[in-house]
Amino acid sequence: MNASYRLHFAPDNASLVIRLVLEEMGLPYETALVDRRQNAQDGAAYRGLNPNGLIPVLETPQGPIFETAAILLWLADTHAQLAPASDNPDRAAFLKWLFFASNTLHSDLRILFYAEKYIDAAQAETLRNGIRPRLRQHLRVLDDVAKTAPSWLHADQPSVLTYYLACQMRWMSLYPERADRSWYQLADTPYLQSILMRLENRPATRAAIAAEGLGVTPFTSPSYAHPPEGSAT
Amino acid sequence: MNASYRLHFAPDNASLVIRLVLEEMGLPYETALVDRRQNAQDGAAYRGLNPNGLIPVLETPQGPIFETAAILLWLADTHAQLAPASDNPDRAAFLKWLFFASNTLHSDLRILFYAEKYIDAAQAETLRNGIRPRLRQHLRVLDDVAKTAPSWLHADQPSVLTYYLACQMRWMSLYPERADRSWYQLADTPYLQSILMRLENRPATRAAIAAEGLGVTPFTSPSYAHPPEGSAT
Repeated sequence: MNASYRLHFAPDNASLVIRLVLEEMGLPYETALVDRRQNAQDGAAYRGLNPNGLIPVLETPQGPIFETAAILLWLADTHAQLAPASDNPDRAAFLKWLFFASNTLHSDLRILFYAEKYIDAAQAETLRNGIRPRLRQHLRVLDDVAKTAPSWLHADQPSVLTYYLACQMRWMSLYPERADRSWYQLADTPYLQSILMRLENRPATRAAIAAEGLGVTPFTSPSYAHPPEGSAT
Repeated sequence: MNASYRLHFAPDNASLVIRLVLEEMGLPYETALVDRRQNAQDGAAYRGLNPNGLIPVLETPQGPIFETAAILLWLADTHAQLAPASDNPDRAAFLKWLFFASNTLHSDLRILFYAEKYIDAAQAETLRNGIRPRLRQHLRVLDDVAKTAPSWLHADQPSVLTYYLACQMRWMSLYPERADRSWYQLADTPYLQSILMRLENRPATRAAIAAEGLGVTPFTSPSYAHPPEGSAT
């Protein structure tokens, strides 16, 4: 690698969160497209980086890291940016909501998007119907947190968690393409909405828009990606 | 609080992981029983500590922390014990597997245990049938990691992740009580099995056995909890 980091990505996949954070931190990085049309994420080369076959992987001087939230936390701590440091009194609260975003919000989103990996196709929509009210409740809880404007979820300054939530809300609005998406309304979470509006003005967001073809309002009024290279599927 | 920490627990709930780690670190702590027979975890007092109504919560000088893995990481960093520090080259690998344990293994376990929270009761067993092969695959992947004996998943010295995995494997063997549990066989993951055997000899494990009535082999051949006080339901 010429840069210290190489991001294995597919447009509008979870790798988008990492791209946004690398841009916000001003770190040089290379990218490598994982061609999902060819199921490259299931191939031996990619499984050598992540045995679970999931996107993203970030290659680093400490080896390949996967798990979106693990990469976020590691980048934040390594570069002392975009999260409270471990001796900061805000650290505990930041960590509990980062894990919540990962193991509750993002896990439930995975079920919504890939219900067929959990149950046979005939019952997938029934499972999705059980997930949507859970997601709405998670968003309500997060909006209550945003209302208190902690340092790590504040409209004036993003953290790694801000970008993570913004991308998850984008995906709720767009996916799965052929399922009901009317349950998600950004206006239901006004404090998060205000954070997402500000995020769209940042250079990091504009860089990601250009790289992955995300349209002008990728968080507040998303449209499907039209990536200048590679595949969004 | 007289001690710096108060652990809100129910016997054999996820709070068990935190108890084991507090014991292993030799930290003084108080406990407060969350009476699940009374649904205390849904009451206003408990929701004030954790708006998601989940066990555990650890009250700390930085306020209440929830999310099992967030508490583990915060304790490890605060007390510089049981995990690679953020400047350690093992940190990246530790973090990715900690998040995997939280957002993939533990999330899938929650579906197995509480399928009715995701789908109507009539289809709960179908959903469980979809989850079991996923869990087996997760365990295979983790056993491959254990085979490489990294510092944070090593038979000679536990980390916070070791205790987290040990408890999750205990629960797979025991719950849900009235569903098929034959799919889980500890011998299928020999490297993890060897770690769990060693863990049972540690004073921290013996303290947890006594406190929550876990029987003599809580990880390698678990039996249901018979807590000396409170409720295991």
